[in-house]
Amino acid sequence: MILATLREGGPDGTLIVVNRAKTHAVRAEKIAPTLQAALDSWSTAEQKLRELATRVEHDDCSRAFPLSIDALAAPLPRAFAYYDAACYPEHISIIRRARGATLPADFLDQPLMLQAVGSPVMSWCDPIKLAEDEAYGVDLEAEIVAITGDVPQGTQRDAAGEHIKLLGMLNDVSLRELVAPELARGFGFLQSKPESSMGPFVVTPDELGALWNGRMFTGGRYRIEVRGERLGELDPAQDVAFDYCDLIQHAAKTRTLVAGSMLAAGTLANKDRRNGSGCIAEQRAREQLTEGAPATGYLRFGDGVYLEFFDHQGRSVFGPIRQKLEKLKQSFPAEAGRGPSSPMQRQG
Amino acid sequence: MILATLREGGPDGTLIVVNRAKTHAVRAEKIAPTLQAALDSWSTAEQKLRELATRVEHDDCSRAFPLSIDALAAPLPRAFAYYDAACYPEHISIIRRARGATLPADFLDQPLMLQAVGSPVMSWCDPIKLAEDEAYGVDLEAEIVAITGDVPQGTQRDAAGEHIKLLGMLNDVSLRELVAPELARGFGFLQSKPESSMGPFVVTPDELGALWNGRMFTGGRYRIEVRGERLGELDPAQDVAFDYCDLIQHAAKTRTLVAGSMLAAGTLANKDRRNGSGCIAEQRAREQLTEGAPATGYLRFGDGVYLEFFDHQGRSVFGPIRQKLEKLKQSFPAEAGRGPSSPMQRQG
Repeated sequence: MILATLREGGPDGTLIVVNRAKTHAVRAEKIAPTLQAALDSWSTAEQKLRELATRVEHDDCSRAFPLSIDALAAPLPRAFAYYDAACYPEHISIIRRARGATLPADFLDQPLMLQAVGSPVMSWCDPIKLAEDEAYGVDLEAEIVAITGDVPQGTQRDAAGEHIKLLGMLNDVSLRELVAPELARGFGFLQSKPESSMGPFVVTPDELGALWNGRMFTGGRYRIEVRGERLGELDPAQDVAFDYCDLIQHAAKTRTLVAGSMLAAGTLANKDRRNGSGCIAEQRAREQLTEGAPATGYLRFGDGVYLEFFDHQGRSVFGPIRQKLEKLKQSFPAEAGRGPSSPMQRQG
Repeated sequence: MILATLREGGPDGTLIVVNRAKTHAVRAEKIAPTLQAALDSWSTAEQKLRELATRVEHDDCSRAFPLSIDALAAPLPRAFAYYDAACYPEHISIIRRARGATLPADFLDQPLMLQAVGSPVMSWCDPIKLAEDEAYGVDLEAEIVAITGDVPQGTQRDAAGEHIKLLGMLNDVSLRELVAPELARGFGFLQSKPESSMGPFVVTPDELGALWNGRMFTGGRYRIEVRGERLGELDPAQDVAFDYCDLIQHAAKTRTLVAGSMLAAGTLANKDRRNGSGCIAEQRAREQLTEGAPATGYLRFGDGVYLEFFDHQGRSVFGPIRQKLEKLKQSFPAEAGRGPSSPMQRQG
């Protein structure tokens, strides 16, 4: 089953069910107005949505309409939680090697996972907007995300698979120049990891067939382009240290995961250098290591990125992400708030 | 205006408007079914909710009913974002002093802020449930939270106040023994900061009168008890380095904050030692410094905590939080998932 969300209705859009050719869709509002509502009542909604999917597939639904992906928001425009892990050691390894560091000794003991912002999620074609400086080192990150139902605290890896209701694709936008100073303060990522964007379609695990083994992808090809040029073509099944069930176990160790939680395995990275890179930072690190200096620039205003994941037969799984970096036009005076930055400083 | 959420309807409960004496309430479902829905349409919902509040206040509402706080969920049972800052330097300072460390040099340059889990939020009386070991060092943290409407990226401090729609109270539960190993991995807090609980009532800033100056509290008394004994009685206006407008500016620097974002100023801490502590960890650090060893134990199964914030006249502002630590009874086999923890290890 393939689901998507129209940019209509409230801030969470309107849920639609899509046929396999992604040419037609039907509003699912009688079953669940939004994807979040469907996930909240998945045990009853799923079967009804599947019946609708079968009817759309067989052209047996009078309410079906021709689908334009321009009409699509992110499938989950506001997620209650987004956990992003670093499951591809090569990604971390290359970046650290370029600055003379190594992987942390406990890297493979348990997933390295951060809590990121899941609201809002940009659509597949929304511009990445930055109010401040393009020199923040704006980067993309090619990721694949699992969306869960409600997951009880303490869920173990072997029981985690059933909680994966949908899979989708993310561009996890990162502001590289803000990462180091932020991490140095010890409280993790915040300003350096703004909103992510999501591919237009999410799919149930069974829709993936042999591409999914219940915990992880078995292959496929994740194509990434920056400024119209190939950056990478990565296989999510290669060189991966943890699977999506590991991620659920890790995140749910001391908490409940609410329906609609997103868990990503981090930027894809393969040891095979011919596969290229899943983000600009990694490409720059490779250039640093092989040529002595980085050559590929981070995104500047006007630059575009493209991401798309293809199955073994070369069919697009989640649709494309195409975004440009734009300067955010602010609707409030730029002069505001230029005073000292804290009450103590202001008092002092 | 005072708002709360009944434990009825869907996972986000049902919004109610409450009178000042907190004895009566009315369902607001015709205006907005949930607090999130009200925040999503605040520009139109606010006035209607205020009219309902006036009617409930003057006993002029046939649909009003006697209120029992036992019927209340967290005002916002699922928040799309929760940012928690460390605005009270004394909290960090004492804890670091006890282990021979000092405040980071840039502590006052900008807020130290983490991204925490805002979904689910426990109600004021939900037990804190832990599937695993009570020896994780379960602690409370006495906090006050601002809830925003939609905040544009790049909002500056001087324009931030208008985005604060509601104020409320949080117990930010922390698992102290998990903090150090987690922070050592560099990606911030996750397992060490499970769900928080929220006081039963949230209030609009105007409801606070002179207790609120538009950016920060001007006083009041935050009472904290552990196992029935006083831990602290803290003034949020004392010794605070940043205000809620600073927090909004910091969090919104590179991202939009969606309606219903929660921003907390961190564990309250005063220099005046007579005021005690806002969490057990700080109390233990004080004991370490004065007596050579910590004496107050972290929460064990069955232990209770109580938090309540009072205004200048001694009136409760957000209602009480009363919670006990309980062992989570798991409904899935404890044997599951005891295999090796990563595909690479499993392959290797």
